Amino acid sequence: MTPVLPHSPGDFFGASVVELGQRLRNGQLTSVALTHAALESIERLNPVINAFVHVNAEGALAQAVLADAALAAGQDAGPLHGIPVSIKDNIDTFDMPTTYGSAHFAEHQPLEDALCVRRLRDAGAVILGKTLTHEFAYGPTGDRSLQGASKNPWDTTRMTGGSSAGSAAAVASGMVPLALGTDTGGSIRIPTGLCGAVGFKPGFDVVPMQGIFPLSKTLDHVGPIANSAEDAALVFAAISAPSGLNPLGSQPFNAQPFKSEHAPRVAWIDVHAFGAADPVVTQTIYRFAETFFKQPLERLQGFDRVMPGLRKAMAAIQRAEAYEVHNERVADNPQLFDPEVLERLQMSAEVRGWEYIHAMKARDALMAHMAAVFEEVDLLLMPTLPLTAPALEQREVKLGGEAVSVREAVLSLTSAWNLTGLPAINIPAGQVNGLPVGLQVVAAKGRDVQLLDQLRELERQAWRHPPGDARLRGE
Amino acid sequence: MTPVLPHSPGDFFGASVVELGQRLRNGQLTSVALTHAALESIERLNPVINAFVHVNAEGALAQAVLADAALAAGQDAGPLHGIPVSIKDNIDTFDMPTTYGSAHFAEHQPLEDALCVRRLRDAGAVILGKTLTHEFAYGPTGDRSLQGASKNPWDTTRMTGGSSAGSAAAVASGMVPLALGTDTGGSIRIPTGLCGAVGFKPGFDVVPMQGIFPLSKTLDHVGPIANSAEDAALVFAAISAPSGLNPLGSQPFNAQPFKSEHAPRVAWIDVHAFGAADPVVTQTIYRFAETFFKQPLERLQGFDRVMPGLRKAMAAIQRAEAYEVHNERVADNPQLFDPEVLERLQMSAEVRGWEYIHAMKARDALMAHMAAVFEEVDLLLMPTLPLTAPALEQREVKLGGEAVSVREAVLSLTSAWNLTGLPAINIPAGQVNGLPVGLQVVAAKGRDVQLLDQLRELERQAWRHPPGDARLRGE
Repeated sequence: MTPVLPHSPGDFFGASVVELGQRLRNGQLTSVALTHAALESIERLNPVINAFVHVNAEGALAQAVLADAALAAGQDAGPLHGIPVSIKDNIDTFDMPTTYGSAHFAEHQPLEDALCVRRLRDAGAVILGKTLTHEFAYGPTGDRSLQGASKNPWDTTRMTGGSSAGSAAAVASGMVPLALGTDTGGSIRIPTGLCGAVGFKPGFDVVPMQGIFPLSKTLDHVGPIANSAEDAALVFAAISAPSGLNPLGSQPFNAQPFKSEHAPRVAWIDVHAFGAADPVVTQTIYRFAETFFKQPLERLQGFDRVMPGLRKAMAAIQRAEAYEVHNERVADNPQLFDPEVLERLQMSAEVRGWEYIHAMKARDALMAHMAAVFEEVDLLLMPTLPLTAPALEQREVKLGGEAVSVREAVLSLTSAWNLTGLPAINIPAGQVNGLPVGLQVVAAKGRDVQLLDQLRELERQAWRHPPGDARLRGE
Repeated sequence: MTPVLPHSPGDFFGASVVELGQRLRNGQLTSVALTHAALESIERLNPVINAFVHVNAEGALAQAVLADAALAAGQDAGPLHGIPVSIKDNIDTFDMPTTYGSAHFAEHQPLEDALCVRRLRDAGAVILGKTLTHEFAYGPTGDRSLQGASKNPWDTTRMTGGSSAGSAAAVASGMVPLALGTDTGGSIRIPTGLCGAVGFKPGFDVVPMQGIFPLSKTLDHVGPIANSAEDAALVFAAISAPSGLNPLGSQPFNAQPFKSEHAPRVAWIDVHAFGAADPVVTQTIYRFAETFFKQPLERLQGFDRVMPGLRKAMAAIQRAEAYEVHNERVADNPQLFDPEVLERLQMSAEVRGWEYIHAMKARDALMAHMAAVFEEVDLLLMPTLPLTAPALEQREVKLGGEAVSVREAVLSLTSAWNLTGLPAINIPAGQVNGLPVGLQVVAAKGRDVQLLDQLRELERQAWRHPPGDARLRGE
């Protein structure tokens, strides 16, 4: 198989939704043209990448026609008006099947949109198709689902990572400019890290989860995948808002940038406490971060003490909650699960109740610890992953001289921010051996908007004054 | 052994704290005299009943001297001023050992009072001694602890019930007029039901649990044991208040009665859905309730559908939470537990995490169900227990023709109100074969004060106009 990138990307490769919006409004582009571009890119690339599991071509074109007519009539729904978006296949859509990546739901057609999808429609987006999820989002490799594996656009023998495999691959390869993903242990950040896109996991409960199939209810998040923090912020503005507020109507759209008053105080988290890492990967990301933030990075210590307990806590919480969701399916129809997912679920049944409660206490302690850390800094920086994309179906990897499980390795740096519910984002940070690596930026509770705003300001500065390093554009 | 009641009660048998307060203030009594009366009653009765595990005679007399001096100087702390109170031995006291009924804490001396004890001291109460708890409050029979079994004052070959065994026996036998107990599945209501006292479990989180050894954190409650709802209300007023409010200072004391504007709408819960019951016991309580509430009782159906799931949910939650508290002790020093308590804990380790989460969902559903029920009625009535006190160490009982476990039988009617966190009270409802039986009254969330107020109004009416039935006075 041939890699798609960097030589034959889709039409939206690196595209800015902000720029597309300007061209839509000055008559250089139409939503129908954008939708055709997306459909043609999908037609060309998807047979290789397997990002889309369903494409609603007719429906998308119909939405685009309406979007163009509305804009012509002066009805502008905001920055997402007329922009094609793909939706991870564990998020309900009233007009497309939603399989959750599982044979259990091979024929499933929801009656209603998830609230976040409804909000995107209200914001004018063209909901174009469904992108592959690891079965029930229960796996960070993106290569086990009813529809098989998504392929990494930089090397199609490699995994995208998961579970938002298709959403990340679709944006990274340029098939669409925007997608929604979900993230329970890293499932937005991991595949955007391995494929080279921006992936934002908002703070816990900042974007409502109604209509999204649960994996682990106290860890699940939904968020945007895009080519820039600026574009991710547009999606975030459309889908965030407490679920109680006006849940069925359109959301007031706020695209005003929140100007940062000072350069963010940042610190770099040493990752050795989190597990084995490829030093070339971490050094590449560190150097990118120094350049991007234009300051030497103070190194934050002290995670050695908390991490071992945290990994155990994370596992106990996620497993117990996941098995609670699936216990009847495991009992009644085990054969419908992918064998690896089934094995993981069966193991998940074994977590004890007291261990779950114990883990919830450890989680409270970590949240308090992080609140104290964020008294001193605005943003924490670290790699999103300690390695580049492993091969499809690879399950063990040599990392810093150790043989470690691929699943543990790819989750090692992201899951702490699900446990704490803190906003965290992956941004492309260059490449190692032709494969993308990503910088993870974490902010304090409630600082989602500030995180996005500081990053889009830095993006503008970096792109306006490129420091001679193509990595800054994720290229 | 000789039964203490009805022939040789302690000095506070049936005493009203409201009346004692009047006599304290008109010079007929002193706190020192009350404290001496309690100490003498304990000296005489406790060797038979084993309610007190520690008595602080000197300290109590010193507190009483100060209380008398304060009153003489016009410093009146309110209705509990100068009144002797005993404290269940799982509640911390800075001036007395607190063993939690366990050899693990045989020598334990807390440094601080529990918040509820501190509030009682601020309200002027004389904190006189510690009363026996089933080991770690993990048992409803009151006959397994570091200090052995408490004995039922009506028949000392029978159990008091537990886990607030000593507090209930101390008040029921007249050693003290007031006590604090705790209630996780019925531990205040069960022993007051079997011994013949008023026992009030407030709504969840209405009285803070700081300084009380946890059994099951989402089910634990602390509340008063007294001779009347009126007296229980005085203690409740002193100890209730959110823990965040002025946690170290004295609480504003509010003894104003909340006048009910109309007769409460009441309904009787048919208990057959909850398990086996002695029909003589339930009929006696039903007749008492009709007389006490002066109305025919509508029977509420529909618990058949919810109860089986609830029992399972209750067990899963309590066991998982209890084991989380004790897992290190079970691993490190199992020999220090009573064998029966140890066996129960070891079984508790087996609850699965997903079962715990599942149970929490069932609990939410029951809470919603009860909220709907309380749209139609003010108070729900049912027996507190389906039987009279079994023999000490008895572990199986014939009930309605079935052999059932004593533990399940005594918990069968109370634990649903821990699961739902609703305020619930036991009031004496007469006797069957010379042993007390109790009526349980349950109110809606947040209606603690109204529940107590309606009951004290009915108590006044019943006692002012006795219907020729001594049961109404709990005699």
